[in-house]
Amino acid sequence: MSAANELACLGGGQLGRMLALAGAEMGVRVRVFDEDGGACAGQVAELTVGKFGDERAVREFVRGAGCATFEFENVASGAARAAGEEGRLAPSARALEIAQDRAEEKKFFNGLGIGTAGWACAGSEEELRGALETVGLPAIVKTRRMGYDGKGQMVVRTVEEGARAWKELGPSSAKHGGLIVEEMVGFAREVSVIAARGWDGEVRVWPLTENVHGGGILRASAALTHVGEEEWWEARGIAEKALKELGYVGVLAIEMFEVMRGEEAHLLVNEMACRVHNSGHWTIEGAETSQFENHVRACMGWPLGSTGGVGASVMVNLIGEVLEGERLRAVMRVEGAHVHLYGKAGRAGRKVGHVTVRRGNFEEAKAGAMEVGRAVGAAEWVERLRG
Amino acid sequence: MSAANELACLGGGQLGRMLALAGAEMGVRVRVFDEDGGACAGQVAELTVGKFGDERAVREFVRGAGCATFEFENVASGAARAAGEEGRLAPSARALEIAQDRAEEKKFFNGLGIGTAGWACAGSEEELRGALETVGLPAIVKTRRMGYDGKGQMVVRTVEEGARAWKELGPSSAKHGGLIVEEMVGFAREVSVIAARGWDGEVRVWPLTENVHGGGILRASAALTHVGEEEWWEARGIAEKALKELGYVGVLAIEMFEVMRGEEAHLLVNEMACRVHNSGHWTIEGAETSQFENHVRACMGWPLGSTGGVGASVMVNLIGEVLEGERLRAVMRVEGAHVHLYGKAGRAGRKVGHVTVRRGNFEEAKAGAMEVGRAVGAAEWVERLRG
Repeated sequence: MSAANELACLGGGQLGRMLALAGAEMGVRVRVFDEDGGACAGQVAELTVGKFGDERAVREFVRGAGCATFEFENVASGAARAAGEEGRLAPSARALEIAQDRAEEKKFFNGLGIGTAGWACAGSEEELRGALETVGLPAIVKTRRMGYDGKGQMVVRTVEEGARAWKELGPSSAKHGGLIVEEMVGFAREVSVIAARGWDGEVRVWPLTENVHGGGILRASAALTHVGEEEWWEARGIAEKALKELGYVGVLAIEMFEVMRGEEAHLLVNEMACRVHNSGHWTIEGAETSQFENHVRACMGWPLGSTGGVGASVMVNLIGEVLEGERLRAVMRVEGAHVHLYGKAGRAGRKVGHVTVRRGNFEEAKAGAMEVGRAVGAAEWVERLRG
Repeated sequence: MSAANELACLGGGQLGRMLALAGAEMGVRVRVFDEDGGACAGQVAELTVGKFGDERAVREFVRGAGCATFEFENVASGAARAAGEEGRLAPSARALEIAQDRAEEKKFFNGLGIGTAGWACAGSEEELRGALETVGLPAIVKTRRMGYDGKGQMVVRTVEEGARAWKELGPSSAKHGGLIVEEMVGFAREVSVIAARGWDGEVRVWPLTENVHGGGILRASAALTHVGEEEWWEARGIAEKALKELGYVGVLAIEMFEVMRGEEAHLLVNEMACRVHNSGHWTIEGAETSQFENHVRACMGWPLGSTGGVGASVMVNLIGEVLEGERLRAVMRVEGAHVHLYGKAGRAGRKVGHVTVRRGNFEEAKAGAMEVGRAVGAAEWVERLRG
């Protein structure tokens, strides 16, 4: 196996693990880099332990690989740039830097004429008061950088809550680029678009995904494979514009709010992730080519595979507790259920696996996912999927 | 990860590799054992190097795993029995022993009232002459044990060729249980049935597979997902009988000849393989649950997944040369093509990967597979698939 067939991935969590498995199917050796010697991708791929901020270690890790990539958003941008200087990096450090900063991200989309919720930055308590006034209440106050899965953010409904938000998030936010205030959008539902772009500029977009979050964590997704393409044309347009502007290579996920203007649904971009994404896990079974396979293909300079849907899929995240024993058997008995466990130990709030139910149509897939949801305590989230 | 979630697999070739990948998706840690330190499953799973005949090493390897299995038919039966004494072994050493001996295998099927080609054993040159007379010419002379992929066998059309076959195969056959003479059946085509049985006796049978061999090696397969279930009822019955009689756990493959009696097609069993099988590779994309996933599920004592077809699939084996560069790109551009490379170095006659084309119907899948076949020099085999 030549090094050209090696993909060096910064981050060794479940995304790196699933990239490694998809790569292995195609004879690509995925190596992973993580700060944690017990990172779960290390069970299926060669794991190098080092600090994400250590440029020298990152350089050494990616050297000689056909391409470098990342599955973890909080890779220091200096380390990502260093990786890019050693050879191919996909996506680029620039894309990562934009995605790492909520204000830069919004500027980027607004600059392309793509709508977001109203927003304003705040570096001091006074600026925060002004920003809350500009954006209006209720609003969400977030650190510009380093937040994920609902961490580093607070909903603010009153001026007093604004003061509390400063006390909670303000002092420590300086090292994360300060705060951002975002308009709290009254959305009909959350959706995401997952798309891939190859080295040659070829773009493939998966069917739109509907997402349900709980406690800031994705709980359940439905692939809108049954919805006509014209209905997700707007999402496709947003993905294509962003990919092209960034000269992006690999998989990009854009989370959006579907808001109603009268009878018509419109999309506002919430945030993007420059990597494979939890809301695209259903593509393993539910699309002709999975997000993991196409990310590897893009990185290796290979043509992308079809992103067309295969049946209808609903995904349920397994949070906290690892599925085992009778509950695991119950889930496996659900027709069309595909169980994915990441080899991680259980811990409150931790993503330890997911189950995708693929069936002939959305109603059947949702019914199956409800069975799964009841077995794993996630039925309340699955229930909310509208399809 | 508890040891109960570990599967110890004897053999670390591509079958072990694909078992390891399927296991990893479900959080099962598959460890592999092989005589070759460069065995390709070692790229994705923990590899222990040892001799298949070394009972002590095999015992040590399987100890503590939730279950032991094998992906390689020529595991010494003593070693398999030793593995079974250490804990769960699936399938059983008895099944392996029957499959390892062509005469025992035929006796087994005939004993269940299942037809095979005519056959007779021969331990000496004189016995071989007698056996050829009993079975009739042309016939195939094979060693009873240790042959695979067309090795250790000769077609005999005349008495003189019978004498040559003895010279070629006879002297060395003593250590392989002697020779067997098999009637050369005028078959319409070759098919196989892949089936799985769980610890609780649950049986699942995949749609019948049509196979094309060349030089004794499987070249291309088509999933007969479009053919009504009643047409493969006979195959399903054969699989169910064999699984039940053996108290089998895991995936079993039975290769058969489809012979015509007047207008009617009938099946004669050729041989069985007590493991996942090359003719079942299409199930990765082409069935709701792959043979690899169901084998792991069976081994772990979990319920089996649906074996229903997903679209129509045609598989093309990659023999000898590893697909790379422009030829790899050409294959990846074929709509619905899924490329599997095993991380093995190229060598004449060696299976280094396969490509499955999954599309909406057999004609489309075959057309895509023809494109693949032209790119990899296998079109002549794909062409022969009738569907």
